[in-house]
Amino acid sequence: MKKSIMAQALIFPTPVFVLGTYDKGGKPNAATFAWGGIASSKPASVSVAVRPSRYTYEALLERKSFTVNLPTYKHVDEADYFGMVSGRNADKFAATGLTPVKSEFVDAPYIEEFPYALECAVTHTIDLGVHILFIGEVKNVIVDESIDSSGNFISDLGILTFDSSSRQYRVPGNVAAAAFECGRRFIK
Amino acid sequence: MKKSIMAQALIFPTPVFVLGTYDKGGKPNAATFAWGGIASSKPASVSVAVRPSRYTYEALLERKSFTVNLPTYKHVDEADYFGMVSGRNADKFAATGLTPVKSEFVDAPYIEEFPYALECAVTHTIDLGVHILFIGEVKNVIVDESIDSSGNFISDLGILTFDSSSRQYRVPGNVAAAAFECGRRFIK
Repeated sequence: MKKSIMAQALIFPTPVFVLGTYDKGGKPNAATFAWGGIASSKPASVSVAVRPSRYTYEALLERKSFTVNLPTYKHVDEADYFGMVSGRNADKFAATGLTPVKSEFVDAPYIEEFPYALECAVTHTIDLGVHILFIGEVKNVIVDESIDSSGNFISDLGILTFDSSSRQYRVPGNVAAAAFECGRRFIK
Repeated sequence: MKKSIMAQALIFPTPVFVLGTYDKGGKPNAATFAWGGIASSKPASVSVAVRPSRYTYEALLERKSFTVNLPTYKHVDEADYFGMVSGRNADKFAATGLTPVKSEFVDAPYIEEFPYALECAVTHTIDLGVHILFIGEVKNVIVDESIDSSGNFISDLGILTFDSSSRQYRVPGNVAAAAFECGRRFIK
């Protein structure tokens, strides 16, 4: 038996997206968002929900560009800080010692010390109430030179997940099963 | 140093959304999608990217309703099967023995054996190429009667994450840090 509780966007997992942007004056900023995901495969696109009060919101409208930097457990403190403090009041790269690098394909910085980033151009904005949903087309993926370029590397990086209900970051756990495999037993 | 690889929506983690819908004739269907996330907090909304070729696509347009059922590791085989086979050709509830239950708030079934589901009404569709992004407003959250109604329960359920790069489902791993806490060390 089930019961109803308050309507809420209660989802696990959410990703930890650290958005890299330049503000009007060209100052690099990094800010953390967990409301987002993949939006389409072709053209490869991602979604991220941003409140208009966020400093990143202005930068997204101004430059139509952002990077999505995926933090591993090694940078959990930095990722958390990026979500707590506004770029209006702080130079977050200076505070953390991380390095912003100009992207090749879009007008936004990526974070050198994180293993990889998606370089995105804003293609759509959808007003959904408290949040504006930005859709970004992935123009390039930039990765550490040391890693295999197949894309399969991400399973070994220890990229963080976020649980908004318990307000905790988690590392990836054990593999439960292989996709497009374990379900075969139900196919007649 | 970094290098560029092919532009792709390379994100970890993605969620495992099992969408419950009724087709034109009222047959319940369950299908798995990993391109999605939270889209707004108020009204609480989620996004999910669906290819027009999917059977669920027709049901979403027809009924403007769906549920998002979150599978735990206990139902990894069922969740995988729901993503491999089309409801056009199979009765997936009959094949797995899971139970579709009519939602109270929307015209879609939830899965009784999964711990909870979001009951959603389609509010927006955005054409993003290969995928159509559906936005659903969460009208209700239905949970197992045995669980605490705060919403904090989801951290203990063992809800699956998906890694598209390695095509693997994972269980949640260890807590890396508390959010809105561990980043304080950078605040001057």
